[in-house]
Amino acid sequence: MSIINTQGPVRPILSKPGQVPAENGQPGFEFYGRHLMTDFVGCQIDLDDAERISRDMEEAIQSIGATILNKVEHRFDPHGVTILFLLSESHASIHTYPEYGSCFLDIFTCGKTIDVIPFGTYLQKLWKPERVINRYEERSA
Amino acid sequence: MSIINTQGPVRPILSKPGQVPAENGQPGFEFYGRHLMTDFVGCQIDLDDAERISRDMEEAIQSIGATILNKVEHRFDPHGVTILFLLSESHASIHTYPEYGSCFLDIFTCGKTIDVIPFGTYLQKLWKPERVINRYEERSA
Repeated sequence: MSIINTQGPVRPILSKPGQVPAENGQPGFEFYGRHLMTDFVGCQIDLDDAERISRDMEEAIQSIGATILNKVEHRFDPHGVTILFLLSESHASIHTYPEYGSCFLDIFTCGKTIDVIPFGTYLQKLWKPERVINRYEERSA
Repeated sequence: MSIINTQGPVRPILSKPGQVPAENGQPGFEFYGRHLMTDFVGCQIDLDDAERISRDMEEAIQSIGATILNKVEHRFDPHGVTILFLLSESHASIHTYPEYGSCFLDIFTCGKTIDVIPFGTYLQKLWKPERVINRYEERSA
């Protein structure tokens, strides 16, 4: 397994000019989010098994302390699954290519309370991809 | 309005070693996707108006030739809207901060048929943000 293109570790940021002044000792205006895009190649599970995928993703989401509010999924013909999770903190998604054991995964969380990196690590351990491409973005004004 | 941090224009890519050989003159294995993350600050519309936002996003999605298969949305208390669109080609999402006129937008499309950049441009024209932060990724193995 290789991990390439990880753009940096999750780190806290401080308030910047233009943000609302801090209240209660906490930084103010938080138009800020953490976005992990992790692409798996050569997974050791059936990526057409929507139930398994959904269950594993729910576990991964819960493992980082995020909260699932809703979910929508679609099976493609002849194969392939898309699942979108609407979270209290934003969203998570997967798009699978079962014929290649490959999938695109995203998790995006607004605010600074959630570390998104372990979401990918959790699924890596379960699905054992041969190759992983990680991209990580801190999004904000 | 400013546009910063756009990592590159959409461009076609050719088959790479390791991909399935081309068939019918087209590149083969397409574990490939285009992901636009565009963050708007200072929008000139009410970002708590879920109906308006949904309608505008549907137009923007259709304008780039993508197809909406499903949608899920949530209104946060006291304000803020999340909408996720499940597309034939992958997904689009928005998370709004109405109190600041700000939002996080994503569109991700698998394959090479859709140019995602005009999705952001379409919504910029409608919502007239004072500031835009674009990130663009070509995702693949």
